Amino acid sequence: MWAELLPVGRSSASGGYRRHAWTGADADCRTWFQEQAEARGLTYETDRNGNQWAWLGDPAAGNAVVTGSHLDSVPDGGAFDGPLGVVSAFAALDELRGRGARFTKPLGIVNFGDEEGARFGLACVGSRLTSGALTVEQAHRLTDGDGVTLPQAMESAGYDPGTLGPDPERLARIGAFVELHVEQGRALDLSGDRIGIASAIWPHGRWRFDFRGEANHAGTTRLADRHDPMLPYAETVLAARREAELAGAVATFGKIGVEPNGVNAIPSLVRGWLDSRAADQASLDTVVTGVEKAAREYAAAHGVDLDVVRESFTPVVDFDHALRDELGRILGKETELRVPVLGTGAGHDAGILSDRIPTAMLFVRNPTGVSHSPAEYAAEDDCVAGVNALADVLEGLACT
Amino acid sequence: MWAELLPVGRSSASGGYRRHAWTGADADCRTWFQEQAEARGLTYETDRNGNQWAWLGDPAAGNAVVTGSHLDSVPDGGAFDGPLGVVSAFAALDELRGRGARFTKPLGIVNFGDEEGARFGLACVGSRLTSGALTVEQAHRLTDGDGVTLPQAMESAGYDPGTLGPDPERLARIGAFVELHVEQGRALDLSGDRIGIASAIWPHGRWRFDFRGEANHAGTTRLADRHDPMLPYAETVLAARREAELAGAVATFGKIGVEPNGVNAIPSLVRGWLDSRAADQASLDTVVTGVEKAAREYAAAHGVDLDVVRESFTPVVDFDHALRDELGRILGKETELRVPVLGTGAGHDAGILSDRIPTAMLFVRNPTGVSHSPAEYAAEDDCVAGVNALADVLEGLACT
Repeated sequence: MWAELLPVGRSSASGGYRRHAWTGADADCRTWFQEQAEARGLTYETDRNGNQWAWLGDPAAGNAVVTGSHLDSVPDGGAFDGPLGVVSAFAALDELRGRGARFTKPLGIVNFGDEEGARFGLACVGSRLTSGALTVEQAHRLTDGDGVTLPQAMESAGYDPGTLGPDPERLARIGAFVELHVEQGRALDLSGDRIGIASAIWPHGRWRFDFRGEANHAGTTRLADRHDPMLPYAETVLAARREAELAGAVATFGKIGVEPNGVNAIPSLVRGWLDSRAADQASLDTVVTGVEKAAREYAAAHGVDLDVVRESFTPVVDFDHALRDELGRILGKETELRVPVLGTGAGHDAGILSDRIPTAMLFVRNPTGVSHSPAEYAAEDDCVAGVNALADVLEGLACT
Repeated sequence: MWAELLPVGRSSASGGYRRHAWTGADADCRTWFQEQAEARGLTYETDRNGNQWAWLGDPAAGNAVVTGSHLDSVPDGGAFDGPLGVVSAFAALDELRGRGARFTKPLGIVNFGDEEGARFGLACVGSRLTSGALTVEQAHRLTDGDGVTLPQAMESAGYDPGTLGPDPERLARIGAFVELHVEQGRALDLSGDRIGIASAIWPHGRWRFDFRGEANHAGTTRLADRHDPMLPYAETVLAARREAELAGAVATFGKIGVEPNGVNAIPSLVRGWLDSRAADQASLDTVVTGVEKAAREYAAAHGVDLDVVRESFTPVVDFDHALRDELGRILGKETELRVPVLGTGAGHDAGILSDRIPTAMLFVRNPTGVSHSPAEYAAEDDCVAGVNALADVLEGLACT
């Protein structure tokens, strides 16, 4: 099953995946999903937003238990982010059937469309449309780098964009959603555990720092006469690292724009973007406040103006406590694994849906922590442990 | 005379000048030059490289004294860088005629073409071609941002590019070249002097620093697991400032390139360019060696690779000592001004020609030190002092 999916959308040059929404590689992944569903005698359907579902039992009965993830990738992404959750869902069903499990609730397996947002710039489009977090009007305005709109892309992939919209009836039939995902950090590797349960998705945001100085000749302007915005920018980059270390958070300056960006010109403008995330809102506030305070002091010391603009912000996603505790009880009873509860800095479909239905996440150990890269990896026995843990969870939630 | 030149090629939006080589604004400046020459009864000519000359007396007599500068500008440049030297040349001739000076040597006034290199990316094209520092083959390869080559641009401006090439006979007839220029720093303002004599053009170079780390997810990668090249880059920017301060030099990181340059991505590559200049080679070496050593330590501390490449280097230009001393004697005798001798970090046609003929430079005070900007400025009485000083120098060199 895994072997059939591995070559789809893989670049021979980098070894990374380019499974972007509504492309040929995405269609191949979708065909694979439908084949896996039908091979297991599951009822296959696509919903109004292009998400794929495979059902054991009739979801109309309600209180369904759903698992799954996504099959699309970032540019040059790895093999595990997304697909591991879908492959593990089918494998867990196989495991439960092998155990002779008797299902008392409908079981669903889902592939959410366009989770990574690699093509249209917005993540989790499939789950956002379904939950209503993204409106149809907003979705119609999404355009890729070649000027193709989301409806045009769906249509050329053979889907009807006229049906896009919120799907509350579908969500009302789901009693629990559990997403298994490769960990995108090294917490499990460091604690020596194969599997973890998500506690929360960290609050995170993006802040733009505009340092405005005075363009001048790099050869003839005395140091004392300069208002060089690159200097407070550099000091702010280092301050962000220090503040994040103190708060146990993360902070990154990964994008920069410089004007005029000439070798022999002192810049007039250095624009840097801060991405910061922390386990809780108070820690994140501490980091961002600290970085901004330091930046203002550095800017003032160099006679440079500073504007700070918050460009985006997502509050903490605290996964359903009852479901999280139930997963802990199930895995504590059924397995000999220690299963720590940990937060994550990355967004997921499970985070989007947690507003509407009880959701939980399982993480599988990532020995290097590398993600969104061809080097993304999980060991085979950890993946097997993930399938078994997911099977235990589904058995505990959906079987007698 | 100044008033006629001021509006040419000026942007109404910024107030800055866009007098780029072989454009309409450049042609207007050239027409102005020819008119000024003819209005004074001087013999006007353009040389094989498009530089304009105005002669009092026959240059074939040899041992000519030449003054002048350039009329082109950087993008959004100021009114003084270049034009002040040409306008002052004509004004100094008027002053000498008013004094009834008797010329014993030919006097030339020159406008060198394309000094700033704003269009084709190479500075001092006119003087480089004439001196042989730029070959015809190299000149033919120069192309502007729209794909227009230098020969094509000259041709559409009505000049014959077929004549381009070194002009040793012309240079052999020149006994001394003196360029008057607005200062591009604040040394005269700080010392309280109106006029200075150039000692040298500082040695300078450009070094590219490539910091290569590991791209990763900005939200999920622990600080301890990162190889973020932005951090050693930031530390190196600050090290460059410290090293330059210690050495009395200048050092600037004004251009940067980042990959993938995404807000939520730890960069894989941060590429920064160091521009550094110092009064002497040893000081420059100290700065660059110190910055590189610090950069290597910072990079190693973050597990980041570093390559440093010297992209360009220009050794010190030490102006002709005999001519420099003669200017000092003339100005010390003729005026009540104190005339300090000072170095400069900027390149000039005089620097190019100093390889071939005795050259000297006079600087006029710049109260803010701002250059290559609409805010570039020199006070009227300082400009008048410059004209008088240039007249004194020309009288001392070319008259009985």
